[in-house]
Amino acid sequence: MEFSSKLLERAVNEMSQLPGIGKRTALRLVLHLLKQPKEQTGFLTEALLTMREDIKFCDSCHNISDVAICEICSNKNRDHELICVVEDVRDVMAIENTRQFKGIYHVLGGKISPIDGVGPSQLKIGSLVEKVKSGGVRELIFALSSTMEGDTTNFYIYKQINSYGIITSTIARGIAVGDELEYADEVTLGRSILQRVPFENSFKNN
Amino acid sequence: MEFSSKLLERAVNEMSQLPGIGKRTALRLVLHLLKQPKEQTGFLTEALLTMREDIKFCDSCHNISDVAICEICSNKNRDHELICVVEDVRDVMAIENTRQFKGIYHVLGGKISPIDGVGPSQLKIGSLVEKVKSGGVRELIFALSSTMEGDTTNFYIYKQINSYGIITSTIARGIAVGDELEYADEVTLGRSILQRVPFENSFKNN
Repeated sequence: MEFSSKLLERAVNEMSQLPGIGKRTALRLVLHLLKQPKEQTGFLTEALLTMREDIKFCDSCHNISDVAICEICSNKNRDHELICVVEDVRDVMAIENTRQFKGIYHVLGGKISPIDGVGPSQLKIGSLVEKVKSGGVRELIFALSSTMEGDTTNFYIYKQINSYGIITSTIARGIAVGDELEYADEVTLGRSILQRVPFENSFKNN
Repeated sequence: MEFSSKLLERAVNEMSQLPGIGKRTALRLVLHLLKQPKEQTGFLTEALLTMREDIKFCDSCHNISDVAICEICSNKNRDHELICVVEDVRDVMAIENTRQFKGIYHVLGGKISPIDGVGPSQLKIGSLVEKVKSGGVRELIFALSSTMEGDTTNFYIYKQINSYGIITSTIARGIAVGDELEYADEVTLGRSILQRVPFENSFKNN
């Protein structure tokens, strides 16, 4: 791609550093900004800069938060003995959206993935183990994605907290509600048969 | 989408103002920036701001340029009597990539589109007509997209410069080189038959 302007080229290059944004998409986005009033570029860059500079993470669950202890962790109506272990803030948002979970979270900030250079020390595993050690945790729900990295992370944590006698569980895997069996992948369908639930439980809410 | 942080929410909202970027994609991009060193956000916002503030348009062809007269317009080896009329900088880049065009460009900055509130006065049509009026233009090539808006714009310009006795042409429409006839759309295939070219011209370069 040959540019008629260095300024344009630099903007496109920086934009295309973002994941999933190629050079062509970056050019389209940048040209869109050029057509809009200057303020819009100002708003965008200011929002990004302020976020990057000022964003905080909850001291307790490590979720993104504007205050030292996030709303969920400081909510006394939630069950602080029930901790759901997730990868990042998107998972918290997804689970919160269901309105089915009344416990609190622990955000690891990723999964153990040697291929991407992510080891246990880069994740918030130590503070989770401390929470369990210090008592006050009844159950840990592992809600990481069921990939090799997710399973590895689950197992790594499990080994460290196993001896403290708390309940550990993983979220149920199976056919999505409303999905047709014939289109389900074999692993999921197989697991949903092995881990079948008593019929009377299948229409229980909570 | 419920956010645990106002700063995060604002960044996602601003990001999702960009065309083709929904809330989920915006969140993914913003979280990516959070995982990267702060400098990357700095580089990105600085590049966007500088571009939006300092970018210039060529005084002659209105293409994006860092100098008053762009490289193409100031190149004496190019044919300044042959002008290709295009919509925006992406079209210039695409045609330059072919290395088949030795003339210069005129960038309109859009197409006449009443539905989007774009009238002739918002486009760089006046200066094009002036160029033709003042002589020195031999041929005008219309290279706008062949949509209703493109055709309208072509015709609007054509009517204003028609009486000055210059050659006007449009780029050839037809089946793409290498494409199979059976998958071509009817309009394109129909036009490629009506506007067939003498066989001896079909392997001519230039």
